[in-house]
Amino acid sequence: STPFKIAAIPGDGIGKEVMPEGLRVLEAAARRFDIPLEFTQIDWASCDHYAKTGQMMPDDWKAQLQGHDAIYFGAVGWPATVPDHVSLWGSLLKFRREFDQYINLRPARLFEGVPCPLAGRKAGDIDFMIVRENTEGEYTNLGGVMYEGTEREIVIQESVFSRFGADRVLKYAFELAQSRQRKHLTVATKSNGIAISMPWWDKRADAVGADFPEVTVDKQHIDILSARFVLQPSRFDVVVASNLFGDILSDLGPACTGTIGLAPSANLNPERRFPSLFEPVHGSAPDIYGKNIANPVAMIWSGALMLHFLGRRDAHDAIVKAIERVLIEGPRTGDLGGSASTTEMGKAIAALI
Amino acid sequence: STPFKIAAIPGDGIGKEVMPEGLRVLEAAARRFDIPLEFTQIDWASCDHYAKTGQMMPDDWKAQLQGHDAIYFGAVGWPATVPDHVSLWGSLLKFRREFDQYINLRPARLFEGVPCPLAGRKAGDIDFMIVRENTEGEYTNLGGVMYEGTEREIVIQESVFSRFGADRVLKYAFELAQSRQRKHLTVATKSNGIAISMPWWDKRADAVGADFPEVTVDKQHIDILSARFVLQPSRFDVVVASNLFGDILSDLGPACTGTIGLAPSANLNPERRFPSLFEPVHGSAPDIYGKNIANPVAMIWSGALMLHFLGRRDAHDAIVKAIERVLIEGPRTGDLGGSASTTEMGKAIAALI
Ligand SMILES: CC(C)[C@H](C(=O)O)[C@@H](O)C(=O)O
Ligand SMILES: CC(C)[C@H](C(=O)O)[C@@H](O)C(=O)O
Repeated sequence: STPFKIAAIPGDGIGKEVMPEGLRVLEAAARRFDIPLEFTQIDWASCDHYAKTGQMMPDDWKAQLQGHDAIYFGAVGWPATVPDHVSLWGSLLKFRREFDQYINLRPARLFEGVPCPLAGRKAGDIDFMIVRENTEGEYTNLGGVMYEGTEREIVIQESVFSRFGADRVLKYAFELAQSRQRKHLTVATKSNGIAISMPWWDKRADAVGADFPEVTVDKQHIDILSARFVLQPSRFDVVVASNLFGDILSDLGPACTGTIGLAPSANLNPERRFPSLFEPVHGSAPDIYGKNIANPVAMIWSGALMLHFLGRRDAHDAIVKAIERVLIEGPRTGDLGGSASTTEMGKAIAALI
Repeated sequence: STPFKIAAIPGDGIGKEVMPEGLRVLEAAARRFDIPLEFTQIDWASCDHYAKTGQMMPDDWKAQLQGHDAIYFGAVGWPATVPDHVSLWGSLLKFRREFDQYINLRPARLFEGVPCPLAGRKAGDIDFMIVRENTEGEYTNLGGVMYEGTEREIVIQESVFSRFGADRVLKYAFELAQSRQRKHLTVATKSNGIAISMPWWDKRADAVGADFPEVTVDKQHIDILSARFVLQPSRFDVVVASNLFGDILSDLGPACTGTIGLAPSANLNPERRFPSLFEPVHGSAPDIYGKNIANPVAMIWSGALMLHFLGRRDAHDAIVKAIERVLIEGPRTGDLGGSASTTEMGKAIAALI
């Protein structure tokens, strides 16, 4: 059968250390489940590439990637040499937008064997999905500085939302909630403070929700919603949010389950007109790079999500099971109280496939 | 001596239930420490007033309040009858802006006797201050909707920052950090995603920080910063943030210490050109209104902050001590596992002054 074409982009920092483990596990799954995978190794979309060429990616990046079924991505960012807004806007955020990966999907789930920072919670108590709008909203470079460099400096930053963009992510979230047992959707908002976009966002949630009478809906302001991730995490099932609010909640959710170093993320173009992108949530973590101590689970789990998206649920489930087992039995990296290296933990997971 | 003139505005929901307890304790402190307090009781800045008059406040609200030393404020918001953005922009947010209360100050502190939602933390482990910019930034009603009501709808929401506004809150936060033992300041940012305002905000932090060589500074993106409130709360001393980020962090911080129902807040015009405003963080809580079960501590503690701001540290300390004792010994309201009413808890605190 035609192989799936995967572009593997390690990027910066620990992205380069966890990528080999991700590939190791994907290759093991490919062998076991007879999945034809074909990898393209790509060293751009990195600050190293920027140092050499003055840009994050070659001019023909889109043409080079377009033929692929998915992008398997490590992390980008090396602020010591390239400011974050330059490296991110020159790579990851370009992918999300130009490949129209409008859904960013991130799980928050409590695992056995992973210490939970919240008191008195056990595996099974917390299990929800965050659906983040991934292409518009608060993340823009629109606006500017007036009276620049003077005491009268004024800065305008514009957020841009569209009905097209809001409705499709709300619809995706309602459908996801509908497909789950509890059928509950939380909509993040801040309509009491952000007076134009957020009341409008609330109205779009009502309009889209009209088609999903079985889904119960709860609108919550982002301030109290963040607080409830800590205080009442079991009440959540699916949470939908704008780009910025989704960014915050999808770090906070995994933090509450102790899995911030473990959390995967899927940047989806559900219609598959463009390649979707799968990446760990943790980022490039310059502070621990170079020691081979980064936890590879987020990268490996992201690979599982990729196979799921490509229609291979069997392989996804096998990888997640292997992760669950290694989290309980070890070997574990330092962040989980163990002393295993990135490589050792990756090999152990691969061996269980 | 000339009495301090305090405008007491209960507002909506549980604001009306906790206000009498706040006043009870303030009056007890006034007697004990011989502080001349003169109260003006105000029933506007409420959704009840809106229902009667079609506006949140009378036209001459500013003239009526201007002569006061401080505003003692309950909570505003009754979304069942008035949309939040109408009630808030018509009252609280007007006070903050037109009285130039540019500092919003909120403590996150772990108390003995208050169950902490984070595992393994004890009183003394968490004790930091959040300094929020309170008059500009992301909270605006600037922007608009294009192609309104059609499928092509596009929404622009503008954030507006000024050097004047950013520098003064950064300076306040640096000074506060400088005055504390650890002298550590965390600056919330999102310069990797919000590409105009946040890189600029980072630069202002550098510029203002140049005058405070003793203060150590840590810039953190709001997503990972939120996660660290849960994972590493002891690392924080003073945290400074824009209006929106400060709003989120100042609910999340108190949530992490189990004190979201207890947390006070000060909206300060440090130069005293206008009255400053003191209010609980918890809001109007329509779901529990009418049962006399709301915890009055946030209101009472806000009163203590008010007396501190008016130069009466003795009374402030006595009130905080009384709160600490009642938190340990009871009576406690339901949120703290007790069964006392709002009134009983308020009376117990007043009795200890
Ligand atoms: C009610 C709302 C407008 C307000 C805010 O967002 O500032 C509140 O959440 C607060 O923090 O005081
Ligand atoms: C690196 C940054 C631009 C990015 C984001 O904010 O989207 C990251 O935090 C994420 O969540 O993927």
